[in-house]
Amino acid sequence: MSLAHGRPYLAIPGPSVMPDAVLQAMHQPAPNIYEGDIVTLVEGIVPDLKRVAKTDGEAAIYICNGHGAWEAALSNLFQPGDRVLIPATGRFAHGWADMAVGLGIVPQIVDFGTKSTIDADRIEEVLRADTERQIKAVMFSHVDTATSIRNDPRALRAALDAADHPALLMADCIASMACDEFHMDAWGVDVAITGSQKGLMVPPGLSFVFFNDRAKEFRAANPRVSRYWDWVPRTEPEAVYQYFGGTSPTHHLFGLRAALDMLHEEGMERVWARHATLARAIWAACERWAEGGAMVMNVSDPALRSHAVTALGLGIGNGQKLRIWTAENAGLTLGIGLGMSTEDDPDGTGFFRIGHMGHLNAHMVLGAVGVIEAGLQALQIPHGHGALEKAAEVVAQPGAVAF
Amino acid sequence: MSLAHGRPYLAIPGPSVMPDAVLQAMHQPAPNIYEGDIVTLVEGIVPDLKRVAKTDGEAAIYICNGHGAWEAALSNLFQPGDRVLIPATGRFAHGWADMAVGLGIVPQIVDFGTKSTIDADRIEEVLRADTERQIKAVMFSHVDTATSIRNDPRALRAALDAADHPALLMADCIASMACDEFHMDAWGVDVAITGSQKGLMVPPGLSFVFFNDRAKEFRAANPRVSRYWDWVPRTEPEAVYQYFGGTSPTHHLFGLRAALDMLHEEGMERVWARHATLARAIWAACERWAEGGAMVMNVSDPALRSHAVTALGLGIGNGQKLRIWTAENAGLTLGIGLGMSTEDDPDGTGFFRIGHMGHLNAHMVLGAVGVIEAGLQALQIPHGHGALEKAAEVVAQPGAVAF
Amino acid sequence: MSLAHGRPYLAIPGPSVMPDAVLQAMHQPAPNIYEGDIVTLVEGIVPDLKRVAKTDGEAAIYICNGHGAWEAALSNLFQPGDRVLIPATGRFAHGWADMAVGLGIVPQIVDFGTKSTIDADRIEEVLRADTERQIKAVMFSHVDTATSIRNDPRALRAALDAADHPALLMADCIASMACDEFHMDAWGVDVAITGSQKGLMVPPGLSFVFFNDRAKEFRAANPRVSRYWDWVPRTEPEAVYQYFGGTSPTHHLFGLRAALDMLHEEGMERVWARHATLARAIWAACERWAEGGAMVMNVSDPALRSHAVTALGLGIGNGQKLRIWTAENAGLTLGIGLGMSTEDDPDGTGFFRIGHMGHLNAHMVLGAVGVIEAGLQALQIPHGHGALEKAAEVVAQPGAVAF
Amino acid sequence: MSLAHGRPYLAIPGPSVMPDAVLQAMHQPAPNIYEGDIVTLVEGIVPDLKRVAKTDGEAAIYICNGHGAWEAALSNLFQPGDRVLIPATGRFAHGWADMAVGLGIVPQIVDFGTKSTIDADRIEEVLRADTERQIKAVMFSHVDTATSIRNDPRALRAALDAADHPALLMADCIASMACDEFHMDAWGVDVAITGSQKGLMVPPGLSFVFFNDRAKEFRAANPRVSRYWDWVPRTEPEAVYQYFGGTSPTHHLFGLRAALDMLHEEGMERVWARHATLARAIWAACERWAEGGAMVMNVSDPALRSHAVTALGLGIGNGQKLRIWTAENAGLTLGIGLGMSTEDDPDGTGFFRIGHMGHLNAHMVLGAVGVIEAGLQALQIPHGHGALEKAAEVVAQPGAVAF
Repeated sequence: MSLAHGRPYLAIPGPSVMPDAVLQAMHQPAPNIYEGDIVTLVEGIVPDLKRVAKTDGEAAIYICNGHGAWEAALSNLFQPGDRVLIPATGRFAHGWADMAVGLGIVPQIVDFGTKSTIDADRIEEVLRADTERQIKAVMFSHVDTATSIRNDPRALRAALDAADHPALLMADCIASMACDEFHMDAWGVDVAITGSQKGLMVPPGLSFVFFNDRAKEFRAANPRVSRYWDWVPRTEPEAVYQYFGGTSPTHHLFGLRAALDMLHEEGMERVWARHATLARAIWAACERWAEGGAMVMNVSDPALRSHAVTALGLGIGNGQKLRIWTAENAGLTLGIGLGMSTEDDPDGTGFFRIGHMGHLNAHMVLGAVGVIEAGLQALQIPHGHGALEKAAEVVAQPGAVAF
Repeated sequence: MSLAHGRPYLAIPGPSVMPDAVLQAMHQPAPNIYEGDIVTLVEGIVPDLKRVAKTDGEAAIYICNGHGAWEAALSNLFQPGDRVLIPATGRFAHGWADMAVGLGIVPQIVDFGTKSTIDADRIEEVLRADTERQIKAVMFSHVDTATSIRNDPRALRAALDAADHPALLMADCIASMACDEFHMDAWGVDVAITGSQKGLMVPPGLSFVFFNDRAKEFRAANPRVSRYWDWVPRTEPEAVYQYFGGTSPTHHLFGLRAALDMLHEEGMERVWARHATLARAIWAACERWAEGGAMVMNVSDPALRSHAVTALGLGIGNGQKLRIWTAENAGLTLGIGLGMSTEDDPDGTGFFRIGHMGHLNAHMVLGAVGVIEAGLQALQIPHGHGALEKAAEVVAQPGAVAF
Repeated sequence: MSLAHGRPYLAIPGPSVMPDAVLQAMHQPAPNIYEGDIVTLVEGIVPDLKRVAKTDGEAAIYICNGHGAWEAALSNLFQPGDRVLIPATGRFAHGWADMAVGLGIVPQIVDFGTKSTIDADRIEEVLRADTERQIKAVMFSHVDTATSIRNDPRALRAALDAADHPALLMADCIASMACDEFHMDAWGVDVAITGSQKGLMVPPGLSFVFFNDRAKEFRAANPRVSRYWDWVPRTEPEAVYQYFGGTSPTHHLFGLRAALDMLHEEGMERVWARHATLARAIWAACERWAEGGAMVMNVSDPALRSHAVTALGLGIGNGQKLRIWTAENAGLTLGIGLGMSTEDDPDGTGFFRIGHMGHLNAHMVLGAVGVIEAGLQALQIPHGHGALEKAAEVVAQPGAVAF
Repeated sequence: MSLAHGRPYLAIPGPSVMPDAVLQAMHQPAPNIYEGDIVTLVEGIVPDLKRVAKTDGEAAIYICNGHGAWEAALSNLFQPGDRVLIPATGRFAHGWADMAVGLGIVPQIVDFGTKSTIDADRIEEVLRADTERQIKAVMFSHVDTATSIRNDPRALRAALDAADHPALLMADCIASMACDEFHMDAWGVDVAITGSQKGLMVPPGLSFVFFNDRAKEFRAANPRVSRYWDWVPRTEPEAVYQYFGGTSPTHHLFGLRAALDMLHEEGMERVWARHATLARAIWAACERWAEGGAMVMNVSDPALRSHAVTALGLGIGNGQKLRIWTAENAGLTLGIGLGMSTEDDPDGTGFFRIGHMGHLNAHMVLGAVGVIEAGLQALQIPHGHGALEKAAEVVAQPGAVAF
């Protein structure tokens, strides 16, 4: 007998659980892509995307995954030989750096390990030291999906301002957008990128680059931008196909329309507060479990934790065992540890991640912690008691979360 | 802010949560209903339905809800003036009795209240007293959806045998089929009925009457049976439309095919064991909560509880408050108390039910108890501690459940 | 190679082609059936159904197919021994008569064959001859799905009035509702029934009985009505389950809501005009083909033809051959001949039907006639020329159709 | 009244009509993208894609539209400054050339206008003249979606061979793959690209680059390839995400799996034969219409016409009028003329295109020509007679089509 025969719950850090309304909206015949409703559809989506990123700048939509959006942003802004500064707090900053290398751009990585946030003072120093202003941009992950560290864009903006450095501030918000509070314009971010499959609750396949006037200047100065990545026709289109550099991603647009409607009906502030509260519920459980010794949240300071994903350690082999147990016995799929391998644990079997992003409510979260509790019990992994009641307590008394 | 914005979980005692594969199978164009695939489809469904009911008898499919199936069974077997014996343990026995009245059949109700199972000895006495054998059938609810009492068909069969009474034994398995262990033939049940929308995991709209050779004799002796309810052409059809007394319920058949595939792939014994274990997980939580005073499970003896639904009391007003809280704050819809009103609580606001039937896994159940815990905390309804860990413990160590 | 690999078109006389919006609306999780949105949903559907039937009377919704609706209407109105007059113009009047027999009602059939409409004068005579007013109702098919004859309710109303006979006028509109013009109140029809799967464009599984105050009097005088069929609680419900005599047909309601929205957005008059015009397009082709000798439309007078289905003869064996050819080679499924067997052609292989009901546009119809033309050519069945251009001509110049 | 209220038929040259099975397969929850079924899914798709292109080479899958696939192929093979030869027979060759320019590649266009196929002798001359072998590739559209000209890859291969030129032969098969006969390996094509939304019958959003060992040599010699477009990890992946350079396009993969199953169940040769035959049916109608003077097929030689799309002229204004009429009155959406503007008709209002690709059967095609006939009649555009019967004749007697 398995207790997994029911609606499976995928609690990995993306793709997130899609609302039924999104999948339903995608289940329809192809539309005309030359004229008619498609035009209205796209023209309505763009401003609603910008409301998600809290920007009055531009939003370019790309048919690609998050890696593609990384390349898109880089392709518009830089030329081979340009230098960018990348403060790293986990795997994905290195990924973006590698993407830059692929374009001939020279990344300068300042690595803050996998457990700490970016030290903005250190970045300020590096910027000050760049007296020739060769650094074209500071590129960082708002949230690193692997480590679950959340960095503060405001601190980096302050560092840039303090150093009086003209570099662009570029945020990878793939794992954070529509989960963690983010105000692109107010926080001084020049370029932000994200994908469809996390906070935006749409299947993977669309990604987005938001940019402001300063970024436009960089683009304007760029002698050559590949046609697919060029954001100019995508944001100043004369015909609908130009939004997408070719054929429109019709069914993703149907789904995105439904998702944006849901987000804005709820309100971005309430979306963020929901994620913050549900993250706190998970952490409340994890803290109790951690008292038993085996479990460690990767990020010790709650203020530095993502509200969309939590990375955990459980002792060599245990992370993997737990993931297998919850999937086979209870219908819960947890995320693998990513970029967490150590010398003792080269395959990272001691780690796992809980995705808690997007279309997410208290039932899903309390079910996930309940199943993890059962798994810890079943596998006799040492853990503290009272975790579930603590999680429920957060749901019961969420308190005010102001943004 | 609400924490309900996620995939809602409907934990009412039917309709149950439909598997994605069922809804997906129903999303297709209409088929030809005169010839072709529809014939194979129906001919494959009938034997697989009988495997669910564990019978070698007949299975008639009706386009109707459970109330219709009640009327169908009665219409085939009895004439106006016939007498039937109905031991009642909740609302639905009375409902079936009322259906009989509507057909001119005379029900004799023996009421066992809303908290106890049928006393088979008492029924045996009544049968023995019926020396003229006027009682044509003993009709009972295997599980009463309102009270969540589960009756034992074997005890009633024993009572009939002990009294050497020729009445038919008829089981309403609407809330129990494919949730609670049931062996129609082995347990001596002559007629069993159920619907599509609970353990069978298909939207409401189809119902089923299973019957054996003894029941066929009653039908044969019946001078007139209405065409719509007549089970003869439905079980001895010459053309496909006769299975349904007219146009086939095409899309429900698509869904039913998918659901039967899932059930038989899992195996009926494992389906029952899963329900039994998940019910025990819920009860483990309820028992702890009950220690705090306010919560009472309607059925005190676990051996008499349904594995598909649990009825609970929480104090006047509290049942309703809890239901509203979980729906608005956490995405969990609980069932209303049904047939539970008292003099002090004429609207039954003190009661609620947890549906735990069908496409159900540990994540869904542990999420439900987690949300109820949060609701009890938020509403400051007195309750004992440690409920969630106890529920998780059952999931962690389900033990062997043999059928 | 087959030319059938594309979107298949099912041109049988029901179930009709479902709009994508209907199937899409049905693809969602089960709702709460006790309270909430379901109440609003049902309360909105009832008046919109009545707008389809053009009545201010009542609309009872049943979970059943059309045969069930026949039985529902009869069960409310009549008792065993009651007499009803049934003018027959095809198979389904006999079916309804048989349904009456199953309830102990005595049908008096006046058969007008399979090629002519009802002779209202003849009915008037029969009614006049019923001096003791034993005939309780005149029951007829507005359209017979088998013969495709369309009868005129106004002529029967006039016959009843002329004979000053108090019998109810009851119309079976299963094949005609939302296809052929129908004004229940204005045309003096007391009871009308229909199903979900034809003009209403929803999968089979729901049916409807419309009735007026005179019918209510019959119901009120009826000493016993079976609970499932009793329309009183269904039209005067105190709780939502009473609309359906038990569990709500949740997913059919979702689909029906979408379909009613489409119908009323188009407007009933325009829906009728569309059906009338597309039927004329088909007939225009058939008339040309008929010039070649083999093809005969079953109903020679266009004024007596259904706008929803056309029955045709093609010579022994040829109907069946054509149906097989179009399905296997071109993706078009035509309806079998029904009730058309003759001594020479006991299996009715010479006949077929074109369904042209519901979600139907010019492309679908012109494609169907194009495929039939190809089939006639391929099978070398004699046929006249110019059929397709004639059909296109009707589409090109539909003219005004006033209702 | 409009006769368009039915299932709309989108006859534009892509996106094509999606099979119900494809949309159904896409309607499911997100899968785990790190492990499990996704791995099997992708590993099964790659060889089945290659069977479509008839190659034993490699298949790289990209999340992008066709324009992206153009850029992908170019990015892998060439460096800034490289020269490519582009024989043009319509808009899309110029588009690919523009894409090359965006990457710093230097296209040498030999323009054959919009009504003729490529003159391979002329290309051979150009290649011979390139004594320094600076031309790295000959890039052409197998079918130009705008002009509907179909070029012969074999002729270009012969030209390369005759000139003993080492340039790669690269085919844009976006509009032709799985519609028109194509044997990548046997015909000596080194690189072929296509998209998901035409012959492959999946929504836009995935594209594919097929390449052989010679192309691999070019890639190996390329000092820098952007990470997103680099086909090496996509075709030699160590982890599933590398197939897609990041997050997998989960729902498109579900749809693609269903589409590939349908294609290979039918068989590529039969798929091509079906397209060829249905194209002939359309042309047969067009030839008759053309006799009336107004209509002209853009490509006069049937041997040079695409089997997936047909471009037509109808006189200034008439193309647009016809498209509007068919959409508003009959449920048929025709494609706009593309790249067809003339001095007299700067907006190309005299042109339109019929898409006849992918999930396409005789009913759809005969319906389309029927509607066009009706439109020509309604708009009083001069046209010859007998068109529809001629189209039906092709369907009736398709003859043998051997590949």
